[in-house]
Amino acid sequence: MSILSPTAPAALALDALCLDMARRAKAAAGRLAVVRTAEKNAWLLACADALVANTSEVLEANAKDVAAALGFGLSGASIDRLTLNPARVRAAAEGLRQVAALPDPVGEVREGGVRPNGLQVLKVGVPLGVVFFLYESRPNVTVDAAGLCVKSGNAVILRGGKEATHSNTALHKLLTTELPKHGLPADAVQLVPTTDRAAVGHLLKLNEFIDLTIPRGGESLIRRVAAEATMPVLKHYQGNCHIYVDTTADLDAAARIVVNAKCQRPGVCNAAESLLVHAAVAAEFLPRIGAMLAERGVEIRGCPETRRFLPNATPATEADHAAEFLDLIISVKVVPDLEAAVAHINIYGSKHTEAIVAQDVTATRRFVQAVDSAAVMVNASTRFNDGFELGLGAEIGISTDKFHARGPCGLRELTTYKYVVTGDGHVRS
Amino acid sequence: MSILSPTAPAALALDALCLDMARRAKAAAGRLAVVRTAEKNAWLLACADALVANTSEVLEANAKDVAAALGFGLSGASIDRLTLNPARVRAAAEGLRQVAALPDPVGEVREGGVRPNGLQVLKVGVPLGVVFFLYESRPNVTVDAAGLCVKSGNAVILRGGKEATHSNTALHKLLTTELPKHGLPADAVQLVPTTDRAAVGHLLKLNEFIDLTIPRGGESLIRRVAAEATMPVLKHYQGNCHIYVDTTADLDAAARIVVNAKCQRPGVCNAAESLLVHAAVAAEFLPRIGAMLAERGVEIRGCPETRRFLPNATPATEADHAAEFLDLIISVKVVPDLEAAVAHINIYGSKHTEAIVAQDVTATRRFVQAVDSAAVMVNASTRFNDGFELGLGAEIGISTDKFHARGPCGLRELTTYKYVVTGDGHVRS
Repeated sequence: MSILSPTAPAALALDALCLDMARRAKAAAGRLAVVRTAEKNAWLLACADALVANTSEVLEANAKDVAAALGFGLSGASIDRLTLNPARVRAAAEGLRQVAALPDPVGEVREGGVRPNGLQVLKVGVPLGVVFFLYESRPNVTVDAAGLCVKSGNAVILRGGKEATHSNTALHKLLTTELPKHGLPADAVQLVPTTDRAAVGHLLKLNEFIDLTIPRGGESLIRRVAAEATMPVLKHYQGNCHIYVDTTADLDAAARIVVNAKCQRPGVCNAAESLLVHAAVAAEFLPRIGAMLAERGVEIRGCPETRRFLPNATPATEADHAAEFLDLIISVKVVPDLEAAVAHINIYGSKHTEAIVAQDVTATRRFVQAVDSAAVMVNASTRFNDGFELGLGAEIGISTDKFHARGPCGLRELTTYKYVVTGDGHVRS
Repeated sequence: MSILSPTAPAALALDALCLDMARRAKAAAGRLAVVRTAEKNAWLLACADALVANTSEVLEANAKDVAAALGFGLSGASIDRLTLNPARVRAAAEGLRQVAALPDPVGEVREGGVRPNGLQVLKVGVPLGVVFFLYESRPNVTVDAAGLCVKSGNAVILRGGKEATHSNTALHKLLTTELPKHGLPADAVQLVPTTDRAAVGHLLKLNEFIDLTIPRGGESLIRRVAAEATMPVLKHYQGNCHIYVDTTADLDAAARIVVNAKCQRPGVCNAAESLLVHAAVAAEFLPRIGAMLAERGVEIRGCPETRRFLPNATPATEADHAAEFLDLIISVKVVPDLEAAVAHINIYGSKHTEAIVAQDVTATRRFVQAVDSAAVMVNASTRFNDGFELGLGAEIGISTDKFHARGPCGLRELTTYKYVVTGDGHVRS
């Protein structure tokens, strides 16, 4: 019943299609919640093998998307994100094998004990149910997201970017072909079979069937999803990550961390966008880091005090201090003390990742406590706020919300828990 | 700046008032997040003492509410919930002392370890920030909610029922008088100073300042709040709790559990509303439990098969199987097997609490896995789904949602966590 046609289906049909997908996902989730880990792992490993075995078929589909993208006038970076090659297909397969090797969060006893009256109380991990996953460009995300959702016992409805339609359809076909072979429901992984944007609006209304929405992409997409969604959304809008260099900092470490956090991969959410320097070390540190950043092509947008030491820096505006540049640009401000750094971060930051470089333990304790962000780094690069780096094994997204998943979210954050309470005919008195 | 006047303030003024309250709460939350446990406990104990010392003042205020309620024509049960007496004031004080004795979830290291590269990764408990707490009738909830929120490091905005205005104002004054004496911000506990219902709508829009809303009351209030809120809501709509009596049940235990779950306190969310009986034990169990329930004044609404064994039972409608009676009424259905019981529960249930009475461990394992509810009881009364009974120490509400707090929510569920990552100048390669 593919409706992948150039003309959008009528509103009523689309509405019904979305409801049908969500209903089938819910039914699949009921079965997925009780399948054994061995079955889920067998599916993950079979998909990894199938991906590698069918590389040429996947690349053929991808070539159609790339050819069309050139016609749409997509930027070089966008086309790079869209493009698959044998190494990227192998990497996606390897990702599935790694997810198979991770512990299953479903059935995990998270806490447990016996109450004074003899009642046994366990908190046991259970899947969320149905995840609606929206993403852009990179077709390998289709494989990553499906692997993480199914391993954590969730059915997933995937909605990729329209520019990746052929690639996503080919990958989805591979993944779903393997489902019934391993005793998993065929509807565990569904791909929205239309590029009509109205489908997203319909699905975001179905909180009776969909337990969580995860949007991955630009801030405007995420804001639209958060505003329209009737179910919880796992998200962050921005990563305006700060590095504060304290008066007690090891300035070698500070320089290394700033360069790594800004330059290693400037286009990602955990790259540093703002540097705060204690006034007492500004004269020594700023010329040094200024030269290192200039060498790497980084534009500095500085406060007036910064420009006393770096006269070539662009004057920073208010907007620069709040910006997520995702580029080789950094805002720099000299602050009188740690408290001013904390206040600045809590005003301009995005609650994603902040770092302090300092040797004084009272300073690091205060910074860690007072900064209201999902991850706080002490003498380490902001780039470490990542599911793999923090030991979660894999990550479906990073949350800056507080109720309750925060920071990088992996398999366990795709589950919740139930209380399982066992007695011998216990009644309450 | 109390605007407790009989005429509602103009929309603009109310709007500004709500924004001001939310801003002050956010500022207070920033300070509360870093105060020491000893200061929070000292405040809790001082409030307990102040409550007892000022009992007569509290009862005087309460008497005004009760007198007015009689005039409004409130029901006897509502007036009972509204009424304070010395024992109830002492109980509220004792509740605060118990919260003081509980461990502080803020700063708690929930997980931690060292990555292969030497980076130390800790997940540390932190407050949510600002909680907006809405409730009805019972003024002692003012004390309970303030105690739980402040102990967990959260500022709280309280909005009680209009019928309890004098009581809540007196209690709020006692609680806030003690705040600055113990180094806590005066705005940590605020009471919405108007009974204008529009204030709720304004506050529910302020997700920039309010991190969580907790509505406690009737289903219609909770649905209105969930529909309007722009921040997460900790809630359950209903508790249509089921008891399934399996063919392998100890029927003595089954009878004891059904009577306890239905009759001990019929007006609460964890009381049983629906009984499912395996066909093989219906002839033996139904006449027996029918007599026991009849003796306690419980009306039975039964399926046709039930009425073969209990001819005096009212015929059950579809609506009866879905109902939360909150009264001495129970729906009863005979089911052919455990799978039919699970299917019935997953259709008609409210995902709150279900119980199985069975001796066969394969049956209990299957029931526990397949029933999609926040708490599943094995050979124990549904009434145990409660923060005190499950060992949380106290409870602010029960959640039937899945992202992420589920079941009874205590101090820890009023917090989230941050990642604290410490290196020696670590950069990512």
